[in-house]
Amino acid sequence: MQIQDKFDQIMAKNNSLVCVGLDSDLNKLPEHLKNSENPQFEFNKAIIDATHDLVCAYKPNSAFYEASGPKGIEQLKMTCDYIKETYPEIPIILDAKRADIGNTNEGYVIYAYDYLGVDVITLHPYLGSEAIKPFLERLDKAAIILCRTSNPGAGEFQDLVSDGQKLYQIVAKKVVNDWNKNGNCFLVVGATYPEELADVRKMAGDMIFLVPGIGAQGGDIEKTVKAGLNSKKAGMIINSSRGIIFASSGEDFAEKAREETNKLKIEINKYRN
Amino acid sequence: MQIQDKFDQIMAKNNSLVCVGLDSDLNKLPEHLKNSENPQFEFNKAIIDATHDLVCAYKPNSAFYEASGPKGIEQLKMTCDYIKETYPEIPIILDAKRADIGNTNEGYVIYAYDYLGVDVITLHPYLGSEAIKPFLERLDKAAIILCRTSNPGAGEFQDLVSDGQKLYQIVAKKVVNDWNKNGNCFLVVGATYPEELADVRKMAGDMIFLVPGIGAQGGDIEKTVKAGLNSKKAGMIINSSRGIIFASSGEDFAEKAREETNKLKIEINKYRN
Repeated sequence: MQIQDKFDQIMAKNNSLVCVGLDSDLNKLPEHLKNSENPQFEFNKAIIDATHDLVCAYKPNSAFYEASGPKGIEQLKMTCDYIKETYPEIPIILDAKRADIGNTNEGYVIYAYDYLGVDVITLHPYLGSEAIKPFLERLDKAAIILCRTSNPGAGEFQDLVSDGQKLYQIVAKKVVNDWNKNGNCFLVVGATYPEELADVRKMAGDMIFLVPGIGAQGGDIEKTVKAGLNSKKAGMIINSSRGIIFASSGEDFAEKAREETNKLKIEINKYRN
Repeated sequence: MQIQDKFDQIMAKNNSLVCVGLDSDLNKLPEHLKNSENPQFEFNKAIIDATHDLVCAYKPNSAFYEASGPKGIEQLKMTCDYIKETYPEIPIILDAKRADIGNTNEGYVIYAYDYLGVDVITLHPYLGSEAIKPFLERLDKAAIILCRTSNPGAGEFQDLVSDGQKLYQIVAKKVVNDWNKNGNCFLVVGATYPEELADVRKMAGDMIFLVPGIGAQGGDIEKTVKAGLNSKKAGMIINSSRGIIFASSGEDFAEKAREETNKLKIEINKYRN
């Protein structure tokens, strides 16, 4: 099955475009978990069990696990294994923002797709398509290319104009028309820039977008959804991390995460029709 | 001590601009090491012991260790610890090509600078300077920003022209004039593009460049050195990975690595005067 279909199916089954970002920073975990043997995994497992019927994907960010060294990588793998065994219908996105030159990317391909076994990875476009071929050639997986990111200052280079088009538009066109030959490319477009999101949607047909920036980063849900939906009233993986997973720092963190996920799901769906 | 000074000192002491890239792909290690408990570390240790008086830096690429999961990360850490304990005068560059948004980069900062304890990390520029502030604010460390990379197809975005300047030139200027306020930024400029290298040198004063692309990738040593030297006849960290570490796949791999390192050092120095 192509990854695009896996997303279409889970978005329909759970009637949800919500992705829960598993940015499980060790320092921010509830106190009562900090002394358990695998606190990041225990935390993730509880969040996943509490939200699996409300989401279209989980997105662990590699940085928060790498910060704990090998022990963190192990817990990231435990998290991915748990999702694949327990909820195999839910895609896993590794937010790793990688991209090296050709032969070196093989290492990251093995790390993400084979060792962790995720479905999707996020990638930087700066080195061009030739460099990231090892990712694009994996037909059973998908690559999400950073196009217009959600951070303040994203425009420093992404808004530079070349031949009448902004860099993020050029990236979008390249990915849509050229890099996506195998139908396994998605784009990152931040919720904090709804005009740019609408603009990229015009270029990208029904391509799936990963949309960070809702919640803690301040993206507006109504504007984001209206700007980014594809012709199937879907095609967006709308991510919230801190706003969901750290909604409570007490023993009820998973319950509160469920509440926030459900609230976000309902709020998003309000603007889908 | 600023990292720039650490490089100046070792370049002078060892009279060398050679950086050995520890791209220690598990599958390419000599057969007799493959069954040892920590093959990547044992391999690196032998290479380091054989070359430490001939180099200005070591540059492990994170991808080749991540491919082995937690076991690989442990061996990368053992490698960094070994260099710091045994040859503390030699800087370590983590080639990780990271860059996420602000708060997430903290995880990579901890991984690279605190857990592994490297001196320098390579970064993608695409998200802008605001995003990578957590790296730039570490005054005891340095960040190397990808400017003109060595891979075929590097120009796909890097050569786009905006307002009369190419994207890599705009990146170079931003880094030199703005991001480098704390004097802790370097640039990556590939040996496979000597004209671009000369061009960036004109903009960058005496800033240190990491120059990959010599050896297996086909960069010409004479052209590279002549194009990239700064006013001190130095300022370049010229990396070779496969050409040195895999010069022999037999039991003499470290000895051969020393020969190749010395050959490259002499060849480079021929064009420094």
